[in-house]
Amino acid sequence: MDEEPRIDAAWLHGRLAELAQIGATPGGGVTRLALSDEDRAGRDLLQAWMEDAGLAVRVDDLGNMVGRREGREPVAPVLLGSHIDSVRRGGRFDGPLGVLGALAAVRALNTAGIGTRRPIEVVNWTNEEGVRFEPAMLASGVVSGRFDRAYAYDRAARDGLRFEDELRRIGYLGREEDRPGQAAAYLELHVEQGPVLEDAGVPVGVVEGIVGITWLNVTVEGQADHAGPSPMRLRRDALVAASRLVAAVDRLARETDEVAVGTVGRLVPEPNVINTVPGRVVMSADFRHPGPATLDGMVDRFREEAEQVSAESGVSVTVDRFWTSEATPFDARVVGEIAAACQALGLPEHRLWSGAGHDAKYLADRGPAGMIFVRSRGGLSHCEEEFSEPGDIEAGANVLLLAALRLAAG
Amino acid sequence: MDEEPRIDAAWLHGRLAELAQIGATPGGGVTRLALSDEDRAGRDLLQAWMEDAGLAVRVDDLGNMVGRREGREPVAPVLLGSHIDSVRRGGRFDGPLGVLGALAAVRALNTAGIGTRRPIEVVNWTNEEGVRFEPAMLASGVVSGRFDRAYAYDRAARDGLRFEDELRRIGYLGREEDRPGQAAAYLELHVEQGPVLEDAGVPVGVVEGIVGITWLNVTVEGQADHAGPSPMRLRRDALVAASRLVAAVDRLARETDEVAVGTVGRLVPEPNVINTVPGRVVMSADFRHPGPATLDGMVDRFREEAEQVSAESGVSVTVDRFWTSEATPFDARVVGEIAAACQALGLPEHRLWSGAGHDAKYLADRGPAGMIFVRSRGGLSHCEEEFSEPGDIEAGANVLLLAALRLAAG
Repeated sequence: MDEEPRIDAAWLHGRLAELAQIGATPGGGVTRLALSDEDRAGRDLLQAWMEDAGLAVRVDDLGNMVGRREGREPVAPVLLGSHIDSVRRGGRFDGPLGVLGALAAVRALNTAGIGTRRPIEVVNWTNEEGVRFEPAMLASGVVSGRFDRAYAYDRAARDGLRFEDELRRIGYLGREEDRPGQAAAYLELHVEQGPVLEDAGVPVGVVEGIVGITWLNVTVEGQADHAGPSPMRLRRDALVAASRLVAAVDRLARETDEVAVGTVGRLVPEPNVINTVPGRVVMSADFRHPGPATLDGMVDRFREEAEQVSAESGVSVTVDRFWTSEATPFDARVVGEIAAACQALGLPEHRLWSGAGHDAKYLADRGPAGMIFVRSRGGLSHCEEEFSEPGDIEAGANVLLLAALRLAAG
Repeated sequence: MDEEPRIDAAWLHGRLAELAQIGATPGGGVTRLALSDEDRAGRDLLQAWMEDAGLAVRVDDLGNMVGRREGREPVAPVLLGSHIDSVRRGGRFDGPLGVLGALAAVRALNTAGIGTRRPIEVVNWTNEEGVRFEPAMLASGVVSGRFDRAYAYDRAARDGLRFEDELRRIGYLGREEDRPGQAAAYLELHVEQGPVLEDAGVPVGVVEGIVGITWLNVTVEGQADHAGPSPMRLRRDALVAASRLVAAVDRLARETDEVAVGTVGRLVPEPNVINTVPGRVVMSADFRHPGPATLDGMVDRFREEAEQVSAESGVSVTVDRFWTSEATPFDARVVGEIAAACQALGLPEHRLWSGAGHDAKYLADRGPAGMIFVRSRGGLSHCEEEFSEPGDIEAGANVLLLAALRLAAG
């Protein structure tokens, strides 16, 4: 095993730290929203590092940056990528790890003097987070045919600025012909955004796919009353009814299986003042599962619970299933190569599903794709406290390197 | 009974309608915040009506307006009052009914040529609602010794304007010696702000007192997590825990007795977004009961439930009982005279506790007090839909008249 290439961990940690200085927040995190001045500064740095790694850099019409290392044959490349934009007060590694890990992998091949049959392209996808321009994964969505370019261009930030105009302003509006081409495989290294690997005591995870997600908007209509003079037996308290639905979402997911999750993240009572019985509650429900039938089953059971609560509480409950993202199982061969890379590195092969969306989801629409997760402390992400141990980061980048090497040979 | 005086219902309905034009809202309600231009216009109208009823009008240093009808003897007067300020988009009758009903009672005595031993004073209390200047019942609170005048004067609205300055601006800053004097009895006619009378099918209620109220601030601290990648068994969901506490507040009140109420009116999850497990919930709890020991008992039992939820859910729950208003039973003789007035008018004698605060609460600190409630459609108040039938308003005002007459004789 000793003759196999390994990434330069010091280089990777150094570059992650350097990039984290751009948009650094007092709490140790990063705010580097898509197409902001900070994003531009990060891109400029990335471009220099790509060129330093000997890559030919191009920028496409969505602002995606592609650094290409040629292969021995003019065949479809292996793509390695992620994003460098962040949420507000997000973590240092969410995104950059996958881009700089890919660069570290290319540098390791260079250092070892290893050529590959297939070209390798390192990609920085624009606006993965969707914080400044909704929806998330906008640019990978256009490249994979999920969205029209015109739709993306017209997305507007809260300040009214358009995606296209901001792309031009920061100097990263390129050409359509420079988009990443059809890939033989896409690999994305990313911090796990949950506590599964930490709980299992494993540094790196082999991702089997991205779960299906469905979002409900639930409206409970009761009767607002003064909190004093309204006897309990005459009330139709929308919050008391909604609290049963919160419990139901939690219980339904727990009863389904170990993988199912259900969350009420948003709940707004009206009028939301201390001395008024809430007349109305608007709340969300988020269910996730790898199996479409199981996902639908949870929604069906939730609707039944909602009807029961309505009948028993004298409130009306409206359930609007307004968005669903179907489950995306990753390509078996790609997943297998990642698992083999773990084995080659003496790492446990821990398989898990991603509960969150990533650019890899849309890339999987176009061709074989897979992801590698790195353990996160406390499972925290999208916050300044996000952290992964240097050793785990190194292990994840080496898995990326070895999996990419095998896929670029095939 | 026919020789007993009766109020002029047409006059009362006409004046209520006229006053409701000041600050009228498109939805049929009223916005006439304390010491606003609308309040001034309403006061000007009220002053003219007081003078038209032959009352000697004075204004005190809190802006309370007092219209006095002399009695045969220089003894303590009977006070009849309420307020003409409103909440935002409030109802037409909440407040004005008690002031104009009192004026209607005085006019009825005038018409019938009836003199009384005691003087009768009609009072419009400043800033009962507490919407523009917190807290509620500010001016009756100063007169009854609950608050200092300096405290009241320094209360500031959201726009920074001070109570004293606004009182001066609208021309209703009078003298301390013109405050309503120590009364033999205080009577307040008010719309019921709940559905009890409607449910009982009774037009007018005899109020036994104002319940004790206690307010808790409850903070549930769990762990914010991404709604996708966090398995159910590793979560510490603050909203799921809070939903159990919402149910507990409701259940504890129902289990106590028919009079007890418990309400969670305000609940704010953080960060309150669809795809994040809430890490923190701040919620209120409002318990009310006429019996202090029962009220304390509900709070004790809630604390026990909170500890249990904390132990079972892995969240921390902090319960802060930050405000309590003790129960105020009304004077037995005053309550008895109101009941006797109902009987004289052929109305059922329906006794109930007020679940909300009123100026009568502070007046009861100073001397004998009582209240008369008029049935509200649907129990709605503090909203544009607040409504009482003309016949019920007339009945309530006649109860006020007869009770005042008996008390002014004593």
